[in-house]
Amino acid sequence: MRTFLAISNVMRTDGEFSLKDIPGTSGRADVIARSVTSAFLTSHGIRADVELYVVCLGPPDPPKTIRFIGSELKHLNPDERTTASLLQKALRTDPGGSWTVSTPGIQVKRSGLEVLDNLPKPFFLLSEDGGPFRPEGGTYVLGDHRGLTEEQMASMDSAGAERISLGPVSLHTDQCIVLIHNGLDTV
Amino acid sequence: MRTFLAISNVMRTDGEFSLKDIPGTSGRADVIARSVTSAFLTSHGIRADVELYVVCLGPPDPPKTIRFIGSELKHLNPDERTTASLLQKALRTDPGGSWTVSTPGIQVKRSGLEVLDNLPKPFFLLSEDGGPFRPEGGTYVLGDHRGLTEEQMASMDSAGAERISLGPVSLHTDQCIVLIHNGLDTV
Repeated sequence: MRTFLAISNVMRTDGEFSLKDIPGTSGRADVIARSVTSAFLTSHGIRADVELYVVCLGPPDPPKTIRFIGSELKHLNPDERTTASLLQKALRTDPGGSWTVSTPGIQVKRSGLEVLDNLPKPFFLLSEDGGPFRPEGGTYVLGDHRGLTEEQMASMDSAGAERISLGPVSLHTDQCIVLIHNGLDTV
Repeated sequence: MRTFLAISNVMRTDGEFSLKDIPGTSGRADVIARSVTSAFLTSHGIRADVELYVVCLGPPDPPKTIRFIGSELKHLNPDERTTASLLQKALRTDPGGSWTVSTPGIQVKRSGLEVLDNLPKPFFLLSEDGGPFRPEGGTYVLGDHRGLTEEQMASMDSAGAERISLGPVSLHTDQCIVLIHNGLDTV
C-alpha cells in the first residue's frame, strides 16, 4: 500500500465553485485535482494499491478530509474538470464523524490533520530543505501550492515526520507524487 | 537546453473545440495541455531552458507543429483550461512555412515529423520496451495517450532514436516529462 496525504489550506470546503473556472472560483481545486490523478492514474489504469487523503482546511467549512481508495475508485479520468467535479461532490456530502461515501472509492469525514494518527508510519514530509528520498513504505505528506503553515510544519515534526526532498528544483504537488511513485515502482 | 517532442495523432488541428469540454471535443487536447505544463512549470516559475515541439497530425488540417519556447513564454498557468486555450490559439493561427507567433513564446508552422531534422541529437524515444534512462542532453520524443503508429516508430528508428523506458509502469506523457526533468535536474 502507498499512502499520500495532501494538505490544502485554501481550497473551498463547501464545494461551491464553478467547473467552468476552477482555479478562479475554488481556492485552487485544480491543484488538488491534479494531485489525485497523479496519485492514481497510470497509462493503462488505476493504481489499486494507493490511498490518498486530502486534508481540507480552507474556508468556509473546515476541517474535512477526503479519502480516495484506489481499489474502489471507478471512472477516474485524467482531465482536471472531471476530477474537480468528484472533489465538489465530496465537499457537498455531509461529513460525519466517520467516513461517508460520496462517490465510489471517495469518502469524506469531519477531520483535520489528526487523520494522520491512523496512517502507516514512517511519515515523510516533502520539503525543500529535506534529505534525500529513499523509496520505502509509509505515508508521504505534501502541501499544496502554498505549502504548510509553520504550525503544520511543527506538528509534522512532532509526529516524527522525516523531511525529504526530491531534488534541487521545487515542484508542484502532483509532480512530486509522480516522482515518489516512480521511485517506489523501480525499487 | 532540454528539448521535448510530443506527437499527437488525434488532437483536432483546427482548434475548433470547446474549453468547457476539452476531453470530449478536442481529440484530447487535455493530454497535450498537461504535457505543456509538465514541460515548463516548476513550483516557482517557468523553466527557461526548455523547448517543446508538439507535432499535430490529427484531423482536419494536419500537419502542424506547435513550438513552445521556455525563455519567451509568459503567463503559463498550471490549469488545463488555460493551456488548452493557448493550444487553441496556436491551432487557429494560419501556419506558414516558417514559424509564426500565436502568443508570446508559442509558434506554429506547417510541419510534421520532419521538424525533428533540426532538433538536437541524440534522439530518445520513450517506449515501454526501451532500455534504461540515462539523463543526458538531446531530444526526448513521446507519444500521446494513443502512442506512435508503427510507421512513426519505424521513422524514429531510421532517425537513430534510442528507445528508453522510465520504469516498469507505463505512464502518461506528462508524467514521463516530469521524470525526465527530475533525472536531468539531479544529474
